[in-house]
Amino acid sequence: MNSDFHVKPEIRILGIDDSALLNEKVMIIGTVFRGGDWIDGVLRSEITRDGLDATETMITMIKNSRHYGQLRIIMLDGITYGGFNVVDIEELYRETGLPVIVVMRSYPDFEKIRSALRHFSDGEERWNIIKKAGKIEKLFTGRNEASIYIQKTGIGAKSAEKIIRLTSIRSSIPEPLRVAHLIATGIILGESRGRA
Amino acid sequence: MNSDFHVKPEIRILGIDDSALLNEKVMIIGTVFRGGDWIDGVLRSEITRDGLDATETMITMIKNSRHYGQLRIIMLDGITYGGFNVVDIEELYRETGLPVIVVMRSYPDFEKIRSALRHFSDGEERWNIIKKAGKIEKLFTGRNEASIYIQKTGIGAKSAEKIIRLTSIRSSIPEPLRVAHLIATGIILGESRGRA
Repeated sequence: MNSDFHVKPEIRILGIDDSALLNEKVMIIGTVFRGGDWIDGVLRSEITRDGLDATETMITMIKNSRHYGQLRIIMLDGITYGGFNVVDIEELYRETGLPVIVVMRSYPDFEKIRSALRHFSDGEERWNIIKKAGKIEKLFTGRNEASIYIQKTGIGAKSAEKIIRLTSIRSSIPEPLRVAHLIATGIILGESRGRA
Repeated sequence: MNSDFHVKPEIRILGIDDSALLNEKVMIIGTVFRGGDWIDGVLRSEITRDGLDATETMITMIKNSRHYGQLRIIMLDGITYGGFNVVDIEELYRETGLPVIVVMRSYPDFEKIRSALRHFSDGEERWNIIKKAGKIEKLFTGRNEASIYIQKTGIGAKSAEKIIRLTSIRSSIPEPLRVAHLIATGIILGESRGRA
């Protein structure tokens, strides 16, 4: 499960971000990168706001992609997409065979999340998915030694850190996620908004 | 009009491509690049299929962008967008103050275009816009010495060639256009399709 492996500079990475919560359906964007350098493809799919279909939608989007055979890793921007549509990263890993790195700008406020989940009839199921995403580790990226937080499955700590450093070349956020964010906000709002 | 200027490696370029013709409204995507390296922003707007609103829509999209003050050049993928919605590159240059480089993979088939325009009541107006886009020049890019064709306004031949070479690092097509194409096709079709 926590194996380290050789990280090639052009390792194919899929970064997934979601768009603003304007409708019942929320667009998710996947960017296929070679390392931190070069965007090779763009994927688009839709999940339900506050639904529980993010994991399955991502699995389908990835397995249907012509890039699937070349992908080596999935990067997520946190594990809640489209509101509280939580991603089961163990299932994502198991079904795609691709290790998952979850990147977070700050340590999640679990009190707040748990409290919000009380409004959902299946709040306990969502909370269990969040809990089993595992340990949150702090990581200092190459860029200004800014710190981010990560969770991971299917990949060792050393390989995960290597991949984060390889791809965080423009900001403290890895390129596949930075660019997925630019595309998702640009498409929905007419112009991208930065946070990276 | 045909001035050459110093081309910085991180010159801000806006590349614009359109999406597939699936509906009456056709999405156009702008990518803001620093040279050929780094995507800084994504713009999105809509034009009418076979309409005559591409020029005005692009002018509005560009002037409303928070990147406007930093942009130095516009790159187009041919001058017909969304079917036969022709772009008046002189007007685009005049209204935005930004020089325009039009990139084409092959020499346009003017016979075919003129023939198709006969089906439009304002075909003569569209033909005039196409004619005044000016001379088409062949250019060999750095990449495998593949040849492309360009038209330009507001920029000299040397500067235009420098910018094309600076940005054609992954294929014979400049990065701002290659990536705008990936985004436009990815969003509309669910997965990007390459031609670059």
